[in-house]
Amino acid sequence: MLPRGRPRALGAAALLLLLLLIGFFLFRGDLDCERSEREASGGGGDPGSLPRSLTPRVPPDERPGPRGTAAFDGDRPAGPGGHNGSDCIPPRPPPPPPKCELLQVAIVCAGHNSSRDVITLVKSMLFYRKNPLHLHLVTDAVARNILETLFHTWMVPAVRISFYNADELKPQVSWIPNKHYSGLYGLMKLVLPSALPPDLARVIVLDTDVTFASNIAELWALFAHFSDKQVIGLVENQSDWYLGNLWRNHRPWPALGRGFNTGVILLRLDRLRQAGWEQMWKLTATRELLTLPATSLADQDIFNAIIKEHPWLVQPLPCVWNVQLSDHTLAERCYSEASDLKVIHWNSPKKLRVKNKHVESFRNLYLTFLEYDGNLLRRELFGCPRPPPPGAEQLQRALVQLDEEDACFEFRRQQLTVHRVHVTFLPHKPPPPQPHDVTLVAQLSMDRLQMLEALCRHWPGPMSLALYLTDAEAQQFLRFVETSVVLSARQDVAYHVVYREGPLYPINQLRNVALAQALTPYVFLSDIDFLPAYSLYGYLRASIKQLELGSGRKAALVVPAFETLHYRFSFPRSKAELLALLDAGSLHTFRYHEWPRGHAPTDYARWREAQAPYHVQWAADYEPYVVVPRDCPSYDPRFVGFGWNKVAHVVELDAQEYELLVLPEAFAIHLPHAPSLDISSFRSSPTYRDCLQALKDEFHQDLSRRYGAAALKYLTALRQPRGPT
Amino acid sequence: MLPRGRPRALGAAALLLLLLLIGFFLFRGDLDCERSEREASGGGGDPGSLPRSLTPRVPPDERPGPRGTAAFDGDRPAGPGGHNGSDCIPPRPPPPPPKCELLQVAIVCAGHNSSRDVITLVKSMLFYRKNPLHLHLVTDAVARNILETLFHTWMVPAVRISFYNADELKPQVSWIPNKHYSGLYGLMKLVLPSALPPDLARVIVLDTDVTFASNIAELWALFAHFSDKQVIGLVENQSDWYLGNLWRNHRPWPALGRGFNTGVILLRLDRLRQAGWEQMWKLTATRELLTLPATSLADQDIFNAIIKEHPWLVQPLPCVWNVQLSDHTLAERCYSEASDLKVIHWNSPKKLRVKNKHVESFRNLYLTFLEYDGNLLRRELFGCPRPPPPGAEQLQRALVQLDEEDACFEFRRQQLTVHRVHVTFLPHKPPPPQPHDVTLVAQLSMDRLQMLEALCRHWPGPMSLALYLTDAEAQQFLRFVETSVVLSARQDVAYHVVYREGPLYPINQLRNVALAQALTPYVFLSDIDFLPAYSLYGYLRASIKQLELGSGRKAALVVPAFETLHYRFSFPRSKAELLALLDAGSLHTFRYHEWPRGHAPTDYARWREAQAPYHVQWAADYEPYVVVPRDCPSYDPRFVGFGWNKVAHVVELDAQEYELLVLPEAFAIHLPHAPSLDISSFRSSPTYRDCLQALKDEFHQDLSRRYGAAALKYLTALRQPRGPT
Repeated sequence: MLPRGRPRALGAAALLLLLLLIGFFLFRGDLDCERSEREASGGGGDPGSLPRSLTPRVPPDERPGPRGTAAFDGDRPAGPGGHNGSDCIPPRPPPPPPKCELLQVAIVCAGHNSSRDVITLVKSMLFYRKNPLHLHLVTDAVARNILETLFHTWMVPAVRISFYNADELKPQVSWIPNKHYSGLYGLMKLVLPSALPPDLARVIVLDTDVTFASNIAELWALFAHFSDKQVIGLVENQSDWYLGNLWRNHRPWPALGRGFNTGVILLRLDRLRQAGWEQMWKLTATRELLTLPATSLADQDIFNAIIKEHPWLVQPLPCVWNVQLSDHTLAERCYSEASDLKVIHWNSPKKLRVKNKHVESFRNLYLTFLEYDGNLLRRELFGCPRPPPPGAEQLQRALVQLDEEDACFEFRRQQLTVHRVHVTFLPHKPPPPQPHDVTLVAQLSMDRLQMLEALCRHWPGPMSLALYLTDAEAQQFLRFVETSVVLSARQDVAYHVVYREGPLYPINQLRNVALAQALTPYVFLSDIDFLPAYSLYGYLRASIKQLELGSGRKAALVVPAFETLHYRFSFPRSKAELLALLDAGSLHTFRYHEWPRGHAPTDYARWREAQAPYHVQWAADYEPYVVVPRDCPSYDPRFVGFGWNKVAHVVELDAQEYELLVLPEAFAIHLPHAPSLDISSFRSSPTYRDCLQALKDEFHQDLSRRYGAAALKYLTALRQPRGPT
Repeated sequence: MLPRGRPRALGAAALLLLLLLIGFFLFRGDLDCERSEREASGGGGDPGSLPRSLTPRVPPDERPGPRGTAAFDGDRPAGPGGHNGSDCIPPRPPPPPPKCELLQVAIVCAGHNSSRDVITLVKSMLFYRKNPLHLHLVTDAVARNILETLFHTWMVPAVRISFYNADELKPQVSWIPNKHYSGLYGLMKLVLPSALPPDLARVIVLDTDVTFASNIAELWALFAHFSDKQVIGLVENQSDWYLGNLWRNHRPWPALGRGFNTGVILLRLDRLRQAGWEQMWKLTATRELLTLPATSLADQDIFNAIIKEHPWLVQPLPCVWNVQLSDHTLAERCYSEASDLKVIHWNSPKKLRVKNKHVESFRNLYLTFLEYDGNLLRRELFGCPRPPPPGAEQLQRALVQLDEEDACFEFRRQQLTVHRVHVTFLPHKPPPPQPHDVTLVAQLSMDRLQMLEALCRHWPGPMSLALYLTDAEAQQFLRFVETSVVLSARQDVAYHVVYREGPLYPINQLRNVALAQALTPYVFLSDIDFLPAYSLYGYLRASIKQLELGSGRKAALVVPAFETLHYRFSFPRSKAELLALLDAGSLHTFRYHEWPRGHAPTDYARWREAQAPYHVQWAADYEPYVVVPRDCPSYDPRFVGFGWNKVAHVVELDAQEYELLVLPEAFAIHLPHAPSLDISSFRSSPTYRDCLQALKDEFHQDLSRRYGAAALKYLTALRQPRGPT
């Protein structure tokens, strides 16, 4: 022990400060020791010039036995920059994560399933990040539609999104034969230097199947370790694949030792462009393809072949930044503690079902973000001022203006809520264009999932369904569809997840999402508790054709609604059977007992006898289920919770002079169900009716503004005395 | 720029190493400069000897205007240990978090609501922790019952729990008049040095209303900054409370400047004991109470009074370790960036509704852990070997022995699953002991919440209900009860949350939780879809008394079951009304159409006429709803999913020679509902019936083992040909 005392301590402090300052200035210079020198001399791939962790100690074709852990940088304390094994002493301290610096991230994503994956990745990244981010998404049309809507409605502060058209990039890589499950899209990482904006100098490139367990700024900070010549930061591959000893006649692409994995890449785009990257990788790929039939691991094979040839290009990264749970993984050699993990890479086709000693822990991390409520990631990145996401400022102003003491505060806030929307959550094939085709449009929450199978049996045509779910429920829904033979067989049902937020069911916002995503010229605006007649889909298409709706005729075809109060119930196969059940008292016209005004104008007596479509007139509170052209007016989103949401839409149709035509052979039957939670918790509230009345009044005011004197009739009709209900 | 070159770089590296080594050895000595010296001299409370951030620059009674930020250590870059303001240069680097060291944490917790709070706190702590933890929980009987069950079933690796009886500690603090909302329990932090084990040297003490945003090991590491004399680590109070200028005649307890907040405390218990802490705080409290009527902020007032008197005891901590969202908070001065936050303290009675510029971010952090799936925190802390939690090893062995290829794998895994259980999730008052009282026992998931209000109207007595929920659903359930006038008025309904895990509904495990928590001598084993006759509760108590069941008579009283297929339905007020509805075809005996064997032995024909209880005999597949003593056999947990779960229980009752007595005036009616998701996703599976058969066979084998030849009758009965069903 050194003796204590003030003068001594002060002197020591001063000395230390001096030494640290000297060290700092020395340090700022490139201290890459021998390595940087040799690389600068441009030596062509002499393995001796590589940091030890990369050096193949035996040539790859010697097929060594289990030499163990030495090739993994993580076996030693995971210092940054992969310099652990070099001759430099001491290792550089980890650079501090940059404060508020904008970090650039690129991801290639195509199709419905990858889009779901990418969202989980982004959630994990956002959870730990403290920096503003710019995401560069290279997407096909499907992923773009999904992710554009998602990010637009997500409104995460300090996240900017740019899209790049993957289809335009295809010709640059489609000439490469490839056997990897990622397909053509895997190869697109090669063309990022030319595809991304020319002023973008650095980017982190991520596969869609990685999960963050730490702050991405720590990864970005590793750019600081690049020497002047280095352009690509990569983690060593954590399997023996590139050693070529996995099976007889296994002939991998050339690589340095175990090679590198391209699930996580740090790219110096500026230097790559300068160095003629495009020519470089194309030359290498062309040459290798003279002797090898195809890439097995897509872009990764080509990156490795280039690095084998030009080893000074690579900056090895600590292995914890890409812990690879591939088949035959050796990842365990990388980390010694749970706390070491930074990024998990699910790079086995088995994904979460891969075998690994600690897979339970990794899975828990993944599930954390899979089920994490994405709304919570809207938290502001205060301390790092950025322009708010489009629309956010306006929304914030509107929210601030709300009066918390207003009894209808919850209604007004719910109306303003922008829900995150994930369109086509599951794989979906748009129906082939047909001039008279019709999509069933409806919305539901978790408590109505059981209706889906029956609905699929009754409606063989396309459907567009909005589901109001939490992130965790969306995963339950996914499993539900996957385990259902009926549902998983259908590709023409589009499921759009609208994420829950707030206490009131945003019924008309949900309907608008489903309506906007319908792809046929006509839509049947139904509700989830109705089962259509088995013949309805075919009959509607025939009626649309026969009535010549396609020629610009503005009409709403009414599908008469019935209900059963019986839980077990045999569905009528024809109008005749339906009428018999009606006469027997097993069926009723819809809401006959509680709310006859809702459907009275349909004129059920006339429908019994009708042989041809007939006109009916709008009347107050009429809310039939109708078939209309897809470009019909949208639902009024102010109606949240329950009540008047459909009535208002029919008023709008009438105001826009849609004919109302009842179809004589069409019908749908409402099945009984327990009241949903969303209803019960609010119907009992005494202010509920008052607020609904306020919404109606405001709706009528807006109507007058838009349609002038013509809208007076709706207000008058409403004020007429009602018959006994 | 320094010129490059190998010899130069090598030389520079060597020099740097030398300097760093010298620095390291100098540094290891105590470099506390002037401060440590002066403190060592034992100066009695001279404010000049304090680090600047604590120094009251004007005496507190001068009531200064807004002097701004200087008193907050966080206004400068939040260095650890609060040394920022001292005369030492350079500040000590943050000590690295200790690897695998066991961290000690103490929390005082009493009652149902605080128990929920503490779980959210623990979830946030576990999420970020990388170290083994030992939690010392000072609890009342209610919290102990809840938390003991919870942690026992949670089975988090590398977490040890010790309980201490708060009631025994009460006399030590109950003499102190206290006006703070935390009540007597707030004061108990004062007695921790004597209450915790004598060999426990250091502990972090937390209020139940804090949330972690970082790894607790970083907080623990601050112990290393304590000087020899320091015993308490605290964050400065982030309001002007102790300045005494909040309102006229506001007379706070004495404190140094703004004083300290005791929501997060680092305690050197060893030194406190040595220094005669108990005498010290009691003396100070007694003396202050001569002139002050009571403590306003519980323990915090007394801690501050002691520190005012003995300022050398305190080690000020960086303010980010206790960001206080109190009313009048000045916390904003503490942090400049979202990334600075380490611990959030919701120390306003308004809790989440407190006003603050960044409260949305804080709330999101809190909601993250409120809704976080606690099962995911069971992840192993690999790299830090600790003995597994009790039972975990055995469970692991059993799980490993399962055959993944077995068609019934999911059934077998679900049986082995240990579900986290949170008993009495909401405030609950046990019913006063009555010799013939009976508790309604049932289980449900989210899709049956709507039944609760009706059930409460039909059953005015105690209920014990198990709810199968996710963590997020548990919060929805909480809001549902809070907004229901009917439900929030009831204190005799105990809700026990069993957390979801796995695909099959663990129906009998749920029933066993609800059964084990019933507190009356008798239980009515019902199902959530049944509404009992309005008179049933009173009638059952009268029957139990009349039949003298209390005198050790082993009997199961059968409550005949009916069903309605109508969704809207007027409940019969009497047996006569019920019989009329039965005759009219509006009601049926339960499952009359699908499964008459289930209730046939009840003999409905006899029941119509019966005036007195009558005996019936067990028969195969009989599954009546019964009233039994609380100590009846539990349900067989092997039956998961649906089918045979109640049948097996009745077999067990019969095997133990319970009389079966049908009550002539008792009835319950099953309401219709859509099939639950749990049913629909598995009933359709072809292996479902095979697996159920396998479970039945194993059940019968076990029965033979336990009851010998007497059990043969069940097997024989089962093999008899069945009538048309």
